Amino acid sequence: MEIESKSTQGEFVAINYISCQEHYLARFEELFKSRAGAIDRLKGFLRMEVLKPQSNDKQSEPEPYLVVSHWENQDCFQNWVKSPEFHEGHRRAFQDMSQAKEQGLEAPMHSKFVVYDVLSR
Amino acid sequence: MEIESKSTQGEFVAINYISCQEHYLARFEELFKSRAGAIDRLKGFLRMEVLKPQSNDKQSEPEPYLVVSHWENQDCFQNWVKSPEFHEGHRRAFQDMSQAKEQGLEAPMHSKFVVYDVLSR
Repeated sequence: MEIESKSTQGEFVAINYISCQEHYLARFEELFKSRAGAIDRLKGFLRMEVLKPQSNDKQSEPEPYLVVSHWENQDCFQNWVKSPEFHEGHRRAFQDMSQAKEQGLEAPMHSKFVVYDVLSR
Repeated sequence: MEIESKSTQGEFVAINYISCQEHYLARFEELFKSRAGAIDRLKGFLRMEVLKPQSNDKQSEPEPYLVVSHWENQDCFQNWVKSPEFHEGHRRAFQDMSQAKEQGLEAPMHSKFVVYDVLSR
């Protein structure tokens, strides 16, 4: 099937903006470089990428990492968030978060999901 | 040539975070839906997409639009910013900005570029 180059076909994008404490950055990167790949099995999953900001300006607030996932539509994304694969894919990070909490430490990272429609290409 | 699925091959991503005044939103969307396509001709340009936030929470600060462009490497992006195509691609928006300034009005939009390396897929 030919897809018109600028058509967006209802495509949906979710971005998780993740800010890490400095001591957790190496672990955070390791988790994504060795990720479980659980999300890849979900219906309607198109692709994902993890973006690392090049921000060396120590004066300003550090920019967060971005975990960008593309989906055929919003329902596919919602199904993923409720799926066992979501928990499998985040298992190690959830363990790190729980462990910090048990030890009375600050969470090693904070994240915020923002969801988008694809307006154009 | 086969590309390993999780390899990022030095790929580079630039995101322009754009906040519009409410009266300018329709014009802003129109500009992107009818964009000149000038960027597509640049060496090393891979793809772009314009992401429209689904944020209906009137309590919080509105989320910006994201203009995401993917490049073979950072040099290709820098070449684009300095190119005639950059000015051609932004001509109508630059005119709107100049016009507002001449009329002593607030700028209809504000934008901030953040650049990223692709850490993983």
